[in-house]
Amino acid sequence: MSAAERFIHEALEVIIDEAVKKATDVQEKVCDWQSPEKLRELLDLELKDGGESDSKILQHCKNAIRYSVKTSHPRFFNQLFAGLEPYSMVASFITEAVKTSLYTYEVAPVFTLMEDAVLKKMMELIGWDEGGDGIFNPGGSMSNMYAVNLARYRFCPDIKEVGLYNAPRLVMFTSQEVSGHYSISKAAALLGLGTKNVYAVPSDDRGKMIPSALEEKIELARSEGAVPFFVNATAGTTVFGAFDPVDEIADICERHSLWLHVDVSSFTHSLFILRLNVLRHTVFFQSLLQRCHSAKASYLFQQDKFYDVSYDTGDKSVQCSRKPDAFKFWLMWKALGSSELERRVDRALAMARYLAQTVKKREGFHLLMKPEYANVCFWYVPPALRGLPDGPELWRKLHTVAPVIKERMMKTGSMMIGYQTHGDKPNFFRMVVINPQVSKQDLDFVLDEIHSLGKDLR
Amino acid sequence: MSAAERFIHEALEVIIDEAVKKATDVQEKVCDWQSPEKLRELLDLELKDGGESDSKILQHCKNAIRYSVKTSHPRFFNQLFAGLEPYSMVASFITEAVKTSLYTYEVAPVFTLMEDAVLKKMMELIGWDEGGDGIFNPGGSMSNMYAVNLARYRFCPDIKEVGLYNAPRLVMFTSQEVSGHYSISKAAALLGLGTKNVYAVPSDDRGKMIPSALEEKIELARSEGAVPFFVNATAGTTVFGAFDPVDEIADICERHSLWLHVDVSSFTHSLFILRLNVLRHTVFFQSLLQRCHSAKASYLFQQDKFYDVSYDTGDKSVQCSRKPDAFKFWLMWKALGSSELERRVDRALAMARYLAQTVKKREGFHLLMKPEYANVCFWYVPPALRGLPDGPELWRKLHTVAPVIKERMMKTGSMMIGYQTHGDKPNFFRMVVINPQVSKQDLDFVLDEIHSLGKDLR
Repeated sequence: MSAAERFIHEALEVIIDEAVKKATDVQEKVCDWQSPEKLRELLDLELKDGGESDSKILQHCKNAIRYSVKTSHPRFFNQLFAGLEPYSMVASFITEAVKTSLYTYEVAPVFTLMEDAVLKKMMELIGWDEGGDGIFNPGGSMSNMYAVNLARYRFCPDIKEVGLYNAPRLVMFTSQEVSGHYSISKAAALLGLGTKNVYAVPSDDRGKMIPSALEEKIELARSEGAVPFFVNATAGTTVFGAFDPVDEIADICERHSLWLHVDVSSFTHSLFILRLNVLRHTVFFQSLLQRCHSAKASYLFQQDKFYDVSYDTGDKSVQCSRKPDAFKFWLMWKALGSSELERRVDRALAMARYLAQTVKKREGFHLLMKPEYANVCFWYVPPALRGLPDGPELWRKLHTVAPVIKERMMKTGSMMIGYQTHGDKPNFFRMVVINPQVSKQDLDFVLDEIHSLGKDLR
Repeated sequence: MSAAERFIHEALEVIIDEAVKKATDVQEKVCDWQSPEKLRELLDLELKDGGESDSKILQHCKNAIRYSVKTSHPRFFNQLFAGLEPYSMVASFITEAVKTSLYTYEVAPVFTLMEDAVLKKMMELIGWDEGGDGIFNPGGSMSNMYAVNLARYRFCPDIKEVGLYNAPRLVMFTSQEVSGHYSISKAAALLGLGTKNVYAVPSDDRGKMIPSALEEKIELARSEGAVPFFVNATAGTTVFGAFDPVDEIADICERHSLWLHVDVSSFTHSLFILRLNVLRHTVFFQSLLQRCHSAKASYLFQQDKFYDVSYDTGDKSVQCSRKPDAFKFWLMWKALGSSELERRVDRALAMARYLAQTVKKREGFHLLMKPEYANVCFWYVPPALRGLPDGPELWRKLHTVAPVIKERMMKTGSMMIGYQTHGDKPNFFRMVVINPQVSKQDLDFVLDEIHSLGKDLR
């Protein structure tokens, strides 16, 4: 066995022991918190002229895992990791070992076809059997950016060549829930459209866009001489997990000839598990991704190749070469089947409902609203504050509770959950229960632990 | 041992045997070519309601590896993979198993500090000890897009909010070598600047930008009433591996107050091994990444956290959460040290020179030019064409030679190299020799094999 092979074997054992077994063991810590200053010392970060021995490198691997947050731990709820999935983990090891990128069929034949198979299956499930197209991107922000760019290209293909200089002021709409702090605004900034041209549409008290308010904003933009072109509806908002009323919004978009993009949360019922940009079902859009993003690199996309070059997908993307992420999804889907995927989603949503019911019953805990989805938002009121009347003083004090509990849970390493404000509401906890490995006991533990960490606060 | 654990163990054995050992074994094929239609059948792609057994899933893993191109094989030269690196492979397995994203320190403390350490070391090496900033992106196209966006933000920060509508026509410059088909144009399209506003600067016969021609193009843009703001210089062009004369270009940029971006090829001497967007050294730019890209998501970037939130890097990026790719580089660097990295680069460049010398000596092979870098471009002229006079007929025939040889090498699986045209030049082979594991024998083999596969062509 070569030295390299021996190192790989030893490292794999470390990975299985530390990053798989211990990282998912409820008896272990979720995190081993260190301040940046302390962690810098512990990790021995300096890069030098000389190299280090394999045994030292193995120690660095152990440290990297040890001080990393265990996002697969059953008591990790900070955001949007859903437990350890052995099939997708193995698939990701394969794509890293095989080390290829998606851009031409000749370089990534297997993963090109697998991405195609996953996309086709997803389009079939939502009823777009023909004429759809899609692409896996590095994350939801990028996917939303693609959507805006495609909508703009459809609205006026010339912008690709001549820029926005002679274009009218283009206006986009999204609910106020996601307008201020989110990827639609990032896309508007990057694409030269301007964040001020993202019009925030009022939402109701559950966080859903109000269709009549959308129509008013469209009229407003028109009256200002601007040109509406894009509406973002969200299926599963970040904070409350709200679903915008897509049917009504679609009718408005049709009436006003606007592109409707539905931003599907990264964990949505059934098979929308990965964020994906699936385009509207018309023949017109079949080649839109390609036409919108192509730059025809001569060293990659030769037209005199000996195979069907429509399998070369690199020109559909902004990046050109992409990681073959779809393989992770494909292998997991193949191993579990659609039914088991659905069962897992159902189970996680049932756990979210259980958490909400339990919060409702417990003294000192207050739900912000009944969840319609995986997001459960609530306040914890320490005993000393429970007698205070509802009002500014209580809110001001309550606002400081979650950050302190968060600090304490990180420092004990017992669990991780997120907190935030919303509008004028003081800091509250926000748990997104999407890990199918989570049990009722884990959720009970979370509430017990919040009380135990925060009961002295005043 | 649980079933999941057993599956992981078995899969890891498959990965080591098939994707590590066989994939780098010179006795094995570089690729097992199948047409898309045939490969579809072989892979059994369909996703069903029911799941499949672990033994079937292992077979899918084997097939995925078997039919994937072996980019780490010593006879793979198609483009831009540089052999198997055990340390970076192990690091990538760790980031996949630990499953985290870079956006806040609390979720990715280790990888946040490691990215910071790698960036600081790289800036130190190029002499920017203070005030620089940087970020690892998913690829060079994205990095160039960031550069254009930052330059635009510096030129006029208001564009982020109000868009390009009242802005003057902004013009970018890059050499004709990379203007037509490349990421700068993709960025211009995406950012709403327009591909026509990328002015192609003539290059010399070695593919280097001509500084006086840049100055002329800047004057031209000004005379049209447009506003130059960005110059892209390339260190290692795609086709010829040419280095634009950065010093002279920098003087011009300074004189005209233009942002100079140097697009460093993904494999450049010494430590520029990853594409990286390192900003100019002034205090002004310290927070530019953040100001340009921030959207201040309330659920991630709370300002009342208990640690120094300048470690939360998510708002520096367009994507928000990113894969912790820097760890791969950090672990490899730690294991090998700067000296060994340099030696490997030197070795690869020496091999590129060897290839060029050998091409020059062999009958029927013609170098396009002496390489200054890792790119070696040459024609192979089959015996039947060797008597033809230089002229359109020879060129027309020569143009068809490389595609046929490429098809044959893919179908035998003996090696993979790329071909392309350039300007009015007929198809030629382009090899980028960046794999330090490649030997002289491998390079001799490539030339022998080209002759053997193409000697009957006429």
